[in-house]
Amino acid sequence: MDQQLRDTIARFRIIDGKGFDLSKFDPAETVVANKQLAEEQVEDDAKLIDRLQDQLFAERKRALLVVLQGTDTSGKDGTIRSLFERTSPLGVQVASFGTPTALELAHDYLWRVHAACPSRGHIGIFNRSHYEDVLVVKVRKLADAAAIEKRYAEINDFERMLTQNGTTIVKLMLNISRKEQGERLRERAKEADKRWKFNPRDLEDRALWDEFRDAYETMIRRTSTSWAPWYVVPADKKWNRDFLAASIVVETLEKMDPRYPDISLDPKAYDFD
Amino acid sequence: MDQQLRDTIARFRIIDGKGFDLSKFDPAETVVANKQLAEEQVEDDAKLIDRLQDQLFAERKRALLVVLQGTDTSGKDGTIRSLFERTSPLGVQVASFGTPTALELAHDYLWRVHAACPSRGHIGIFNRSHYEDVLVVKVRKLADAAAIEKRYAEINDFERMLTQNGTTIVKLMLNISRKEQGERLRERAKEADKRWKFNPRDLEDRALWDEFRDAYETMIRRTSTSWAPWYVVPADKKWNRDFLAASIVVETLEKMDPRYPDISLDPKAYDFD
Repeated sequence: MDQQLRDTIARFRIIDGKGFDLSKFDPAETVVANKQLAEEQVEDDAKLIDRLQDQLFAERKRALLVVLQGTDTSGKDGTIRSLFERTSPLGVQVASFGTPTALELAHDYLWRVHAACPSRGHIGIFNRSHYEDVLVVKVRKLADAAAIEKRYAEINDFERMLTQNGTTIVKLMLNISRKEQGERLRERAKEADKRWKFNPRDLEDRALWDEFRDAYETMIRRTSTSWAPWYVVPADKKWNRDFLAASIVVETLEKMDPRYPDISLDPKAYDFD
Repeated sequence: MDQQLRDTIARFRIIDGKGFDLSKFDPAETVVANKQLAEEQVEDDAKLIDRLQDQLFAERKRALLVVLQGTDTSGKDGTIRSLFERTSPLGVQVASFGTPTALELAHDYLWRVHAACPSRGHIGIFNRSHYEDVLVVKVRKLADAAAIEKRYAEINDFERMLTQNGTTIVKLMLNISRKEQGERLRERAKEADKRWKFNPRDLEDRALWDEFRDAYETMIRRTSTSWAPWYVVPADKKWNRDFLAASIVVETLEKMDPRYPDISLDPKAYDFD
């Protein structure tokens, strides 16, 4: 990866969240010249992610966790597809976190999340995550405010423990505008093949747009760390979103630099006939 | 899918295992003219599997379980990659069953398997499965012989229950020859990028080739049912294996015929601005 792209990625990486201002990040920004260039690069990146995951698996020492957060229609599913379509299903573990079940609610909020963390050698993807516990839970007041307030530090501690035990964490906030969300919801409601995805309740969350926006901003301010940075990905253009997200994952994997283990073995010592 | 291909698939499908004779199935047989044709068709099938899974997910009523069994190097990993590479990781749940852990051994042998069955809307893939409990467990005498004897009927009952509750089951036995296995193991030991896959213990299983062959034959005789048939896939040629396996999965999904739900909804009734 060239230095120019590294510098671009760095502009969207939040390591120290103090004073983070979401309004300074334009959801419609693009960091690649056009759609065609973006799609070609994403296709190449997807193949590279597959190869690097294979090496990660051969090593069996470390894991990568990709956390995806964003409002409805921000493109979490699409991002997962674009980035990991070329990776063998054996190498990827996806966990989607919806409304907690009764069993999950009977535990602390990190319980179900911890259970779904990737095992060594794998890439884990969180489609929504423990961050819902400081987003929708906060906006809709589904837990005690004082308890929610403590979660930012608890999450930072939890993620530090994970990274110290071999899991690299990348957190992607898919940043779309209110206008773009409206267009995507309208499209879902209109098209027969997409209508099953449309939930009128999404419009209730949409009515709380500003509250969610503030919760996202606070989340990034308080849980951007050197060991588990947030990336604010401009997501109004799907091709730009995929291009930047793929670049971030590739850069992270390349830094991890997984390698096939160097096994000394004399093939002649074995009988294969 | 044309009738000719359906007829071809039927030749490898075992519904009634009585008198099943594995020696009548040639691991080197090919059912497609050449490698290029096979690879093009598998690429198309992979995209079709993705679309059909999306419809299965939209329905959320049924699941597909693909069970993969075969000796070391028979190509289980490669088959998974070829067939499901184009399916979103969100739609596929892979479970690999290795040597049971202490916790798993503290339960009946179907416990860990049941827990890993696919949820509605998903394709589950078993990379090895409960069938190891009548294969390696039988050959290496890791359980009481009388208990193992009862497992064939228990497994049939378990699978009937799954199918009656919405899970379609397809079982693929990847059939390779002893000679081809020897060549693949030799290649693993020789190549630096593959050496980490080589386990000298695989040669111990290889020394028990005939015992494993007999265990596979008995397994197919006793667990081929109308509700969960075995398919004996000639697997010496990787492209033939992928072609036939992909055709079987596509045929099964087409028979399931998942459809986007017909939701009546007036987009004008909602405010997207």
